[in-house]
Amino acid sequence: MPDLIALLTDYGTRDGFAAVCHGVIAQAAPEARVIDISHDVPPQDVRHGARVLARVVPYFPPAIYLAVVDPGVGTARRGLALRAGHSLLVGPDNGLLIPAARALGGVTEAYALTNVALWLPDVDRTFHGRDVFAPVAAYLARGGPLKEVGEPVDVDSLAQLPTPLCQVTGDAVTCEVTYVDRYGNVQLAGGESEVELVRDWAGQGRIGVEAGEVQDDATVASTFGDVADGELLVYQDSDGRLALAVNNGDAARRLRAVPGDLVTLRPVEAR
Amino acid sequence: MPDLIALLTDYGTRDGFAAVCHGVIAQAAPEARVIDISHDVPPQDVRHGARVLARVVPYFPPAIYLAVVDPGVGTARRGLALRAGHSLLVGPDNGLLIPAARALGGVTEAYALTNVALWLPDVDRTFHGRDVFAPVAAYLARGGPLKEVGEPVDVDSLAQLPTPLCQVTGDAVTCEVTYVDRYGNVQLAGGESEVELVRDWAGQGRIGVEAGEVQDDATVASTFGDVADGELLVYQDSDGRLALAVNNGDAARRLRAVPGDLVTLRPVEAR
Amino acid sequence: MPDLIALLTDYGTRDGFAAVCHGVIAQAAPEARVIDISHDVPPQDVRHGARVLARVVPYFPPAIYLAVVDPGVGTARRGLALRAGHSLLVGPDNGLLIPAARALGGVTEAYALTNVALWLPDVDRTFHGRDVFAPVAAYLARGGPLKEVGEPVDVDSLAQLPTPLCQVTGDAVTCEVTYVDRYGNVQLAGGESEVELVRDWAGQGRIGVEAGEVQDDATVASTFGDVADGELLVYQDSDGRLALAVNNGDAARRLRAVPGDLVTLRPVEAR
Repeated sequence: MPDLIALLTDYGTRDGFAAVCHGVIAQAAPEARVIDISHDVPPQDVRHGARVLARVVPYFPPAIYLAVVDPGVGTARRGLALRAGHSLLVGPDNGLLIPAARALGGVTEAYALTNVALWLPDVDRTFHGRDVFAPVAAYLARGGPLKEVGEPVDVDSLAQLPTPLCQVTGDAVTCEVTYVDRYGNVQLAGGESEVELVRDWAGQGRIGVEAGEVQDDATVASTFGDVADGELLVYQDSDGRLALAVNNGDAARRLRAVPGDLVTLRPVEAR
Repeated sequence: MPDLIALLTDYGTRDGFAAVCHGVIAQAAPEARVIDISHDVPPQDVRHGARVLARVVPYFPPAIYLAVVDPGVGTARRGLALRAGHSLLVGPDNGLLIPAARALGGVTEAYALTNVALWLPDVDRTFHGRDVFAPVAAYLARGGPLKEVGEPVDVDSLAQLPTPLCQVTGDAVTCEVTYVDRYGNVQLAGGESEVELVRDWAGQGRIGVEAGEVQDDATVASTFGDVADGELLVYQDSDGRLALAVNNGDAARRLRAVPGDLVTLRPVEAR
Repeated sequence: MPDLIALLTDYGTRDGFAAVCHGVIAQAAPEARVIDISHDVPPQDVRHGARVLARVVPYFPPAIYLAVVDPGVGTARRGLALRAGHSLLVGPDNGLLIPAARALGGVTEAYALTNVALWLPDVDRTFHGRDVFAPVAAYLARGGPLKEVGEPVDVDSLAQLPTPLCQVTGDAVTCEVTYVDRYGNVQLAGGESEVELVRDWAGQGRIGVEAGEVQDDATVASTFGDVADGELLVYQDSDGRLALAVNNGDAARRLRAVPGDLVTLRPVEAR
């Protein structure tokens, strides 16, 4: 059983909510090592949290992931503990954990958190991170067996986030923006095969980029410094996804693109 | 003696000031475990820092709390080390430590930091976190006795923050806004008895909310998802305080409320 | 060999990029202790990162500093590992590491990171923090010898940041703004001798401050609370540098000063 707990929340760092979870863990599992993945997920942005969690898990040793982005806290939505690969994931049943679980090899066991004996004595309906999820994660870090956290549930019953659109039609690929990072780099839903398609087009010249009202041209490249300052590039990002960036600039601002928007790429001569 | 140091400051995380304190501790007390509560207290906002510290301490194991929000750094204001419950608190004498000490059971011993032998050799008048408070916290974490940090002082002499106003007058409760969190949830000075009063009123219908020029109606509920998206609720928050929120929204923005403002709640029919 | 790794990046904390580096280290050097210096260096601001790193190193025990602010990632710029004092520094060859190395006593050995056997198997051209620098830092933390990281390079060949301007001309000192912290305190390029000069002038009265279009007066003081609320002061800051602040205010906003601007100080009667 891993004794490393990795935390991801949308609690921010100015209010002490994440620190309270650290305190609960330090009290219940003093030997556990704790790493903060992020507490700066935008408030209640489950898709952002899911993407960040999926990004980091391939690089971690076996861990107990405690992830809380939970607009439905205190309602009928279930709390979950999942096994995936050599790791465990604890958090709400709203799709947050699933992309990471997939990156870890897929969910092999799933439990609803129903064993109230593991929770703090008084469970507030607005703060399950403190009162339910952190105590359960600490229990698992102490070596508590996964099956003790509650009732087994069917893996097919777990809530899923919608699959982002990515569609190739003849001479164009249209993808949803899945993520914008702090540098303004724009990640698209396309993966390896869309990257290769765009690389093929690049032999013929530049790539046309349409994002809502904005039309632009990009160079296919493999890192920012391959193009001039302020130039737009299409590249495979460090998650392996199709992405857009501006060298020493902010592609999201230039394209006025936010997660959920559609972006179309095509060879320039086909536009 | 606890060997866990928990840090709270308004130093932010972009300038390295909090990291310097980590370095001082790592050098002087290499075996101590360190947890960051927050470094994102708004600059010099002692009341915010005091509220966050008081929020987290009930969930921590015995610890040495090193808290620095210190607009008076380098002036005649005293540095303090306090014992409260099984924990110790180190920081400036400006009220910052007192609500947390109260949450830990109250101050049982108080010392002014006057033993310069425990400080760094050169004390800068603008950075006592680095030069005074962190070395003293590290000394305590190494097992140094509390009474060695300086002169004992009278508990009644400790600086206090003003008590926030909360007043029940017939058919209304008027409370100061004590805290606004990153979600825009608005915490009021009211506690258990004001929460119960408002719950009693709820039998008669909705609750009127007056915040400066803004007049609104709220539902009494116990979690966000109990009301429709965008609806205002009155609830008991996870600190046990009377509070206002908007489901999937920002109550502070809606009510244009900031800490220190007055908010009045009353049964709608009484308005 | 130190087993403490201290991390400084411009990765922010909302995207998980810094957490990925934590994961790589936790996997490759599970016994290493890791302290975050900052991940909130403004994106690609090498000078800001260099200043923060140089600020913290004098207060740390021997450490492996892993610093990544790297606009040239994936281009021909070298990766470096340096020895300075009892510490090691790992990061890009763009000047980021040099002020800290100087504060540690100067670079005594320098290597270009060319031993690909130490890197992750697939090196992405946009994320050397994850694929090159973190694995090398973890290797060193496990006790790997510095000379194994790659080819030795000439210390004189290391990229340097430009020296910020600071010039005394008769009755005036003109200095570049080198840093603005979260409180709006304005650090200038001047050090001990410029501080003494300004202190000498203070015997004659107040100090005139010119920053672009803004003309103002300041008092020479040694901490914020030495002057009235809202008053401008000239002081020696906790880095030992000449600096400007406003008591309970924001000097950068008042002077409209940002890093790189020039500020001139002179005795008021000489203006």
